[in-house]
Amino acid sequence: MNAPIHPIEQLHVALPDLDWVTDGNRIARLSQDFSWFSPVLKRQLAGKVADAVARPRNEDEVKRLVGLCAKLRIPLTIRGSGTGNYGQAVPLRGGVVLDMSGYNQFIGARHGTARAQAGMRLVDFEKETRAACGMELRCMPSTYRSATLGGLFGGGFGGIGSINHGPLAARGNVIAIKALTIEEEPQVVELRGPDALLLHHLWGTNGLVLEIELALAPAQDWQEHFVVFRSFDDALEFGNAVAHAPGIAKREIGLLADPIPGYLKQHADELPAGCHAMILAIAPSSEGAMRELAQLWRGEVTYTATAEDIARTRHTLLEYTWNHTTLAAFKVDKGITYLQSAFTPGQHLEQVRRMEKLLSPEVQMHAEFIRNLDGQVTCTALQVVKFTTEERLQEIMALHRENGVRINDPHVFIVEDGKAGGALSQGVLDMKKRFDPLGLLNPGKVRAWMEEGPQ
Amino acid sequence: MNAPIHPIEQLHVALPDLDWVTDGNRIARLSQDFSWFSPVLKRQLAGKVADAVARPRNEDEVKRLVGLCAKLRIPLTIRGSGTGNYGQAVPLRGGVVLDMSGYNQFIGARHGTARAQAGMRLVDFEKETRAACGMELRCMPSTYRSATLGGLFGGGFGGIGSINHGPLAARGNVIAIKALTIEEEPQVVELRGPDALLLHHLWGTNGLVLEIELALAPAQDWQEHFVVFRSFDDALEFGNAVAHAPGIAKREIGLLADPIPGYLKQHADELPAGCHAMILAIAPSSEGAMRELAQLWRGEVTYTATAEDIARTRHTLLEYTWNHTTLAAFKVDKGITYLQSAFTPGQHLEQVRRMEKLLSPEVQMHAEFIRNLDGQVTCTALQVVKFTTEERLQEIMALHRENGVRINDPHVFIVEDGKAGGALSQGVLDMKKRFDPLGLLNPGKVRAWMEEGPQ
Repeated sequence: MNAPIHPIEQLHVALPDLDWVTDGNRIARLSQDFSWFSPVLKRQLAGKVADAVARPRNEDEVKRLVGLCAKLRIPLTIRGSGTGNYGQAVPLRGGVVLDMSGYNQFIGARHGTARAQAGMRLVDFEKETRAACGMELRCMPSTYRSATLGGLFGGGFGGIGSINHGPLAARGNVIAIKALTIEEEPQVVELRGPDALLLHHLWGTNGLVLEIELALAPAQDWQEHFVVFRSFDDALEFGNAVAHAPGIAKREIGLLADPIPGYLKQHADELPAGCHAMILAIAPSSEGAMRELAQLWRGEVTYTATAEDIARTRHTLLEYTWNHTTLAAFKVDKGITYLQSAFTPGQHLEQVRRMEKLLSPEVQMHAEFIRNLDGQVTCTALQVVKFTTEERLQEIMALHRENGVRINDPHVFIVEDGKAGGALSQGVLDMKKRFDPLGLLNPGKVRAWMEEGPQ
Repeated sequence: MNAPIHPIEQLHVALPDLDWVTDGNRIARLSQDFSWFSPVLKRQLAGKVADAVARPRNEDEVKRLVGLCAKLRIPLTIRGSGTGNYGQAVPLRGGVVLDMSGYNQFIGARHGTARAQAGMRLVDFEKETRAACGMELRCMPSTYRSATLGGLFGGGFGGIGSINHGPLAARGNVIAIKALTIEEEPQVVELRGPDALLLHHLWGTNGLVLEIELALAPAQDWQEHFVVFRSFDDALEFGNAVAHAPGIAKREIGLLADPIPGYLKQHADELPAGCHAMILAIAPSSEGAMRELAQLWRGEVTYTATAEDIARTRHTLLEYTWNHTTLAAFKVDKGITYLQSAFTPGQHLEQVRRMEKLLSPEVQMHAEFIRNLDGQVTCTALQVVKFTTEERLQEIMALHRENGVRINDPHVFIVEDGKAGGALSQGVLDMKKRFDPLGLLNPGKVRAWMEEGPQ
């Protein structure tokens, strides 16, 4: 009698036709995401690696793999392109990483919505929706070229476009999902609206999402601008004015306070030393109105690219917004990290100004104007932080909280400690029980599950 | 030697090729507008009639007519379809009415804007913009089938669509106008953005607008609903929730409080006695989210028409909103009139509730959710009023003002007494001097001009 073979080996033997990644370096790479933005997570997650990576190409492959993992009690970690920041894609207890990027077919568009498989990249999804019905994503991260639909749903917030439609979680943005239970006989379940959101932003720990259907916005030929200011307050007020102006059609309003514009080396000519820069994506018909506001707030428009320019050059300022700003800073200064924070609507200008005064240049303000879940204009920020010690990083976050600014701590890898901001709702926990009764989805990421364990 | 002929006769003789309306009844009809909505204006404007009506077909005809009127010092009143409510189209001191409805060519669409001659009907303008670039008006009155672009600019506010883009006067909505000075040698002037707005909502007294260029919004396949409620507060809260929800794409949110739904005889089956009804135009992708909110606020969706239904039947609920609500009430009860009022953003729900409690059923609440010039969600209302006396009407308006509600008095025909709400700005007066130095545009409608007179 042979010695019992390792469960991972059993998987390989039982499912030889799957697309298995076998190279150790590739397995290590596919066990990582952008959690290295945080020196804390970098330390905490060092050495966490999958035992195997599979790249399913169709629903049957997903089901067979999931069913067998459930039978063998092998942990599963679902990943897209790994653009997440909370160690979403890092398997805490080994097992199998499911790289969903090959599960990427567009399914269809109708009545202002579109559906695709979870592994489809956002850029490809939007190409399809533009072609099918002249519509675009309501909100998307700056990583839309590489990020997947499943990643946006599983770990994303919103981003570009949220100034109009709020975060992805705003009622009406997510129409439905199709998800799979992690069981020996995996079940396919369709969930709509609020029920679907019970699997949202849980970093892939609450079920395996196969398909996502989103409400879209009519596509527009967005053009991009830098508007630069000598005064921080002027830049902030200008951004707020554009954000509120109902006659200015926009998709993105980001504020990069000095010294952040200095990190954008490719645009040094348009970003004079010491300036505070706004990045805008607006409709061409709104350029005149935007320029009026820029003049009112003593700003100078130093860069303009039309939609045609952007399509031709494939260079877009959107890739300096949201967490791409942080990436641009990293390229210049390896000693930085960042925050994620949300300001209080109505007090957001005052709070942004106060934090800038208190902490610049140690904390460098990068604010994004959005509408929140309730449609109120506010700022969210992904500040660039000169990292010294973990203690100082905690102090900085505490200082924000003391000033009424919410911190969505990006230096943690437990769901409850991040944007969830505490205990998960009963609805979310019930969904976890339904979709992952064995607790196999990246165990260690949900505290409630570590305490209670699976039913 | 013959007796000197009357100036009007001189016009006819000098410009025989113009399209003159000669029938007395037609002249009388073309000297009127919807100011009969007000019993006060009906009394005050009774018998005001033009001496002649001309229907220019091209710029040359407009120029020759205006030049000669200037030379002969004949008053000129510019009209479109006469859907205005402040006696805009009623010539206070005779003279010539210019019916611009024949001056109605579409000029073109580019980069999300479109331009047309002032006499083009809004419905035709939107057909052209939909065909040219898949875009639609950002805001329009409920009279869009008959109202002209020039009328919207000269006397309109906004309306359907203002929940997204604010009123027409919001920065960015009006791109440019081409206007004519009223002089012996009329000059054509192009004005852009804020300069153009110095001719807006002055009821055609500040220059003759030939062409208008507007920023557009991407066209969507709006569908329409009635949602009915037993409770006034529930209906109001539901409307406010839809108005704020960033994930619900909408074009119209109107509240018809009991007993107003009873005036809509054609829809008696869907509007149970005693109900408060919301009229919605939303994107089809937002239907699910809207129904969730309806359920939360104990509302029932009793009517749904898709964009295809509306195109096929040509029946739209939009023609029960804004001042069409008043018209529907008139068809049932000749003894009504109406108000125009604006509530304070943030206090708008409380104010609407208070006025409903204070004055219903004498004043019947018809509120419309909009974004104001600053992008804040609020209500405007066109309440239906059971008319008794002019004194009581004044009391009702005073009561609104005492409760912090702004009244844009629709029972006046002097520009300063209406929505302008007092003295005109120096910019407006300077524009009046520039465009109408002889004071010939419907003299009697601008108080500043009666006091100062032309330069």
